[in-house]
Amino acid sequence: LPAKLPHTGTTIFTVMSALAAEHGAVNLGQGFPDFGADPALLQALTDAMAAGHNQYPPMTGVPALREAVAAKLNALYGSAYDPGSDITITAGGTQGLFTALQCCVGPGDEVLIIEPAYDSYDPAIRLAGGVPVGVPMTAEYRIDWPAVRAALTPRTRALVLNTPHNPSGRVATAQDLAELAQIAEQHDLFVISDEVYEHMVFDGAAHESVARHPALRERSFLVSSFGKTFHVTGWKVGFVAAPPALSAAFRRLHQYTVFTVHTPSQHALAAYLANPAPWQGLSAFYQAKRDRFRAAVAATPLKLLPCEGTYFQTVDYSAVSDLPELDFARWLTTELGVAAIPLAGFYQRPQERRHVRFCFAKRDDTLAEAARRLGRLA
Amino acid sequence: LPAKLPHTGTTIFTVMSALAAEHGAVNLGQGFPDFGADPALLQALTDAMAAGHNQYPPMTGVPALREAVAAKLNALYGSAYDPGSDITITAGGTQGLFTALQCCVGPGDEVLIIEPAYDSYDPAIRLAGGVPVGVPMTAEYRIDWPAVRAALTPRTRALVLNTPHNPSGRVATAQDLAELAQIAEQHDLFVISDEVYEHMVFDGAAHESVARHPALRERSFLVSSFGKTFHVTGWKVGFVAAPPALSAAFRRLHQYTVFTVHTPSQHALAAYLANPAPWQGLSAFYQAKRDRFRAAVAATPLKLLPCEGTYFQTVDYSAVSDLPELDFARWLTTELGVAAIPLAGFYQRPQERRHVRFCFAKRDDTLAEAARRLGRLA
Ligand SMILES: CSCCC(=O)C(=O)O
Ligand SMILES: CSCCC(=O)C(=O)O
Repeated sequence: LPAKLPHTGTTIFTVMSALAAEHGAVNLGQGFPDFGADPALLQALTDAMAAGHNQYPPMTGVPALREAVAAKLNALYGSAYDPGSDITITAGGTQGLFTALQCCVGPGDEVLIIEPAYDSYDPAIRLAGGVPVGVPMTAEYRIDWPAVRAALTPRTRALVLNTPHNPSGRVATAQDLAELAQIAEQHDLFVISDEVYEHMVFDGAAHESVARHPALRERSFLVSSFGKTFHVTGWKVGFVAAPPALSAAFRRLHQYTVFTVHTPSQHALAAYLANPAPWQGLSAFYQAKRDRFRAAVAATPLKLLPCEGTYFQTVDYSAVSDLPELDFARWLTTELGVAAIPLAGFYQRPQERRHVRFCFAKRDDTLAEAARRLGRLA
Repeated sequence: LPAKLPHTGTTIFTVMSALAAEHGAVNLGQGFPDFGADPALLQALTDAMAAGHNQYPPMTGVPALREAVAAKLNALYGSAYDPGSDITITAGGTQGLFTALQCCVGPGDEVLIIEPAYDSYDPAIRLAGGVPVGVPMTAEYRIDWPAVRAALTPRTRALVLNTPHNPSGRVATAQDLAELAQIAEQHDLFVISDEVYEHMVFDGAAHESVARHPALRERSFLVSSFGKTFHVTGWKVGFVAAPPALSAAFRRLHQYTVFTVHTPSQHALAAYLANPAPWQGLSAFYQAKRDRFRAAVAATPLKLLPCEGTYFQTVDYSAVSDLPELDFARWLTTELGVAAIPLAGFYQRPQERRHVRFCFAKRDDTLAEAARRLGRLA
């Protein structure tokens, strides 16, 4: 076999979920809720099947769902996406990211990714023949714009933005997006914007979508997911919003990557989105879980880093252990019974820091049990 | 944007489905049933959701489904696939084909495809940097083995097999697979075997899977789909079976292409496959529809070609019209009210033949209405 992604193993999420299961650990590793979705959403899927929606949908997605997505984005971010030409339903966020990167990256093209970076960006760029260029965030996990500028070359083709940011929990500011817009315009870059945590932003902050910024919107593939927002990560339905020329290119590849996406789930999501703003309250819901989890961690020697969005909390464990991140995450899982994700899994090169990420999208009793176990560190 | 698949438009299936809808034509174009799935299968999906199976499944697929797939293949084809290492659940057949081709094709590699060929093979090969090499079938739509041998070069890396064959309805023979095994061994080729119609084989013939032939099995990615077999083309769940080294390479790419597949559908299919051989009777069911449709067409000047498997019937319309295939298919749709697929959609180069394909996976009343309209050709 040709050496495709020779340096790539099993994703860290799979590795840690397996280890957690094997050791009966509380799994705060891979990001998914351990509670149920709204029964009304599940009922809507059953209804869609009963209504006969079990055959191929249109290649670009069920029209009612594309309309609901465009309406939502346009209402929230002041954009003017057209559901006919600008929205494509994807088999989850990962497939949206993969296909968008295949669209705009060719052999030798460089793509800037802000590290720590979700682990699928790098291989998706490499599979397109491109060269991922990691730009480290600042020590406070802010985007380091001078470092971004320094990484630009004549071959830089695109930048992958992720806000709210996994794993750091940072949320990009309007100033960040203004910087990005300036760079993208000056260097004629595409932007792949991973906004799957768009509805989890805390302390009253606003999510700054590329859709909100006209100069960015016209050169961006906005990627999002219903799995995170509606507690159904296993449904694997997301969307990509992009202006017509970009969407046309996206669809050309999408139709040969997966062709279409689970029909009854699309109908169910369309029906569910007909409720008034069903994502409302999600930020408050997760903010309460964040606060609960932070209070527990604050009683241990783990040092809390800021968490402005997402359902992830990163901590510095250097007061507890000198182990490298992967070893510490294994130790936490096997010895303390709490699984976490080492931030090393989000970098191409070894790091000096001592940071792991916990997912707090869990029932309160799960978080309480995790807190009890983490309390043994004190 | 870089010129990815510049010669590729919207798939012919999408084009003809849209035209059929616009003109109220009986849609015998795109291949999907117009009748419902077994209510027990739909109920199983509802049950899976109620049981809480709505979050990420394991990356390779739900274990019970992988076990059911391995058990089925091993029982039917005498193989010994291991559900742990050899089976991966995919987001439908198209994603299985795409990812398998990404695995074994690198820049400059040539891949033989037997034409007419399903339209996703060519772009999937090109996206991997490979060169699709079309090998025409014989006039009777048999694989032309001398032509296959003549097309081999030192850069030939793989061959895409499709049996039962879409669009021709031909079924490969044991002799065909013996020829393929010899060529593949001599030239060290990978085989991507599209067997999504494996359970639709007529007149008592047997489906010759690559899984049945040890020399082929060890170098093949066997791609199949539950959508065709269980009348749920919109569920987009399929699988790839391949020996451990090939499956490991497949999974490395799969995890960054879609990562995972709709969890409740996987549980539903696993439960459904616990029934004794739920695909039994499918061949007889479609053979009766084939016979009904052929009887109707026999009363028109359209000339029937053999149909040994799949749910497609190809006809020669040269006694009716001199129009090129795409034009005739449009005319049939808009003027006669029956949508079909021009076989031109399955070739890279223009063809001289006058053939279109009808899908007979339709209710008997739908087939009767199509027959009534086609009767106007007489
Ligand atoms: C796609 S599995 C990983 C889930 C996730 O997004 C995360 O844990 O970061
Ligand atoms: C994936 S849409 C096309 C359905 C199909 O397999 C066909 O009509 O040939």
